[in-house]
Amino acid sequence: MKKIINNPNNVVEEAMEGMCKAFPNLIKRVKDTRVIAKKEIDNTKVNIISGGGSGHEPAHAGYVGDGMLDAAICGDVFTSPTPDQIFEAIKEVKSEKGVLMIVKNYTGDIMNFDMAKDMAEMEDINVETVIVNDDVAVEDSLYTTGRRGVAGTVLVEKIAGAKAKQGANLADVKKVAEKAIHNVRSMGVALSSCTVPSSGKPNFELVDDEMEMGIGIHGEPGIRKEKLKTAKEIAIDIVDNILKDLNFGEEVALMVNGLGGTPLSEQFIITNDVIDYLETKKIKVFKSYVGNYMTSLEMNGISITLMKVDDELKSLLLEKADTIAFKE
Amino acid sequence: MKKIINNPNNVVEEAMEGMCKAFPNLIKRVKDTRVIAKKEIDNTKVNIISGGGSGHEPAHAGYVGDGMLDAAICGDVFTSPTPDQIFEAIKEVKSEKGVLMIVKNYTGDIMNFDMAKDMAEMEDINVETVIVNDDVAVEDSLYTTGRRGVAGTVLVEKIAGAKAKQGANLADVKKVAEKAIHNVRSMGVALSSCTVPSSGKPNFELVDDEMEMGIGIHGEPGIRKEKLKTAKEIAIDIVDNILKDLNFGEEVALMVNGLGGTPLSEQFIITNDVIDYLETKKIKVFKSYVGNYMTSLEMNGISITLMKVDDELKSLLLEKADTIAFKE
Repeated sequence: MKKIINNPNNVVEEAMEGMCKAFPNLIKRVKDTRVIAKKEIDNTKVNIISGGGSGHEPAHAGYVGDGMLDAAICGDVFTSPTPDQIFEAIKEVKSEKGVLMIVKNYTGDIMNFDMAKDMAEMEDINVETVIVNDDVAVEDSLYTTGRRGVAGTVLVEKIAGAKAKQGANLADVKKVAEKAIHNVRSMGVALSSCTVPSSGKPNFELVDDEMEMGIGIHGEPGIRKEKLKTAKEIAIDIVDNILKDLNFGEEVALMVNGLGGTPLSEQFIITNDVIDYLETKKIKVFKSYVGNYMTSLEMNGISITLMKVDDELKSLLLEKADTIAFKE
Repeated sequence: MKKIINNPNNVVEEAMEGMCKAFPNLIKRVKDTRVIAKKEIDNTKVNIISGGGSGHEPAHAGYVGDGMLDAAICGDVFTSPTPDQIFEAIKEVKSEKGVLMIVKNYTGDIMNFDMAKDMAEMEDINVETVIVNDDVAVEDSLYTTGRRGVAGTVLVEKIAGAKAKQGANLADVKKVAEKAIHNVRSMGVALSSCTVPSSGKPNFELVDDEMEMGIGIHGEPGIRKEKLKTAKEIAIDIVDNILKDLNFGEEVALMVNGLGGTPLSEQFIITNDVIDYLETKKIKVFKSYVGNYMTSLEMNGISITLMKVDDELKSLLLEKADTIAFKE
């Protein structure tokens, strides 16, 4: 295992410290917790939290800031945060208008966020939950009942965050988050595995000319292993899988997401193929996001996310956010 | 070679197309050239261009936009752009106030940018050049007389771009760029090699427990190969090398730059160690940048950049830029 770390069991703690020291004007660590919160919490608006296992940076702590998340909980690498830590985040951001939790659909996350919600309700804090399940690759995966939540979560966080910033009430923020979830679909491919620091071994194996189509963001198996294809073939395969799942209409937001070890140039090459292919389907890209948004440590691979957009979603996507990793 | 590409000889062309299709409101490709330019060129201010070999994305085309670069020239991977292509960029952005070229110190780049400048002067276009040579690792490297230009270039582009946007004349934009260059130092380390698509083979070799200290951004040899150290040991070694080269005073801008294949969590871990170590030296970090700013394809490694800042440089760093990869 070749990593720039100090202690394999301390990577989350030290990464959190590094983030907070690097961006003290944006974020702070809630003392003695695994929670990163906005530096100044506004208790008069709906506040939004997300979180999950670490190893997906910049998700989610990189999206804490004005117009997006108010706090993020950092679990161990590829491990759900515990209910007490989620509850710490809820307490930190609690507001008169309530708290929305945006949760990726993994069994452990669902259970722990639910327990934290129960704890909050015992203290009369109003909490609602939305579950993101955008990955069209597999139903009922290794860690999931139903579909997995992946990179589409970032766009849901952006949209909900913008709506909350506008002063909407909890029901309306939840409603627009649910519309965003309903409208978003993703799928990924891996060319290499990744290594959880505390295990020291690759999560799975791929031989030299092989890729894993439909990969999960923890290295969970996808649809199939197959021979490495060209960028264009991958683009068409993934977009076809996404398009057959929903009628996207005429306009989408597009996210081409690097999984951590993929050069940006390759991300742009497949972006080129995706946009060309969508054009043949008469689908226009309203706005593109290309980069490392929801990673799997150093995994070489990409995911493609499409979100069907209407006027409301478009205007919320265009609102400015000011976070470490999302500034538009 | 495992890459998400279509044709190893066509990666630069296709990546450029992908960028322009994804961000049509920010940038455009100058027809039949290797130049990416701002969508709307303002001919009343000093315009700024940069460029070099591709493979360092988002440098430099990702920094084209309001408040930073006005155009970027994309050479073949790890290969200087040709003089005629640089001249195309100069013609595209020429303005009554003149053009500043920000060039990384590599022999091929210097020669080709110089020839383009000569071509421009024959058409009475006023062009000035600054050379960035921030890498303290080696003097007179494989491709360089003097020190190499690396990630510090991004901060020089930011500072010059902000000054030009304020309406300064060419002499003043050049002067502040030169101050930024005088004040900036970098050094990197690699844990893995990278593969130029058209060659198909790794640029150099590292065994399992080895790192290359002082690596160049094309995989050129550094100071020495040595056993992989901890993040903290690497941080101290690099920062010591940087600090002994310049009196940084009390305040710096810090860039922790991923070389392409390094998880963001590891970048934050070493950021934590760098900021801690600078504190012991009584050096305060005025502003931090953490992420993939100047990469070497999929290389696993990082570089650390410090820039000594005064009030002028601080205020220029704080001006907003609106580019694909730099939005602050």
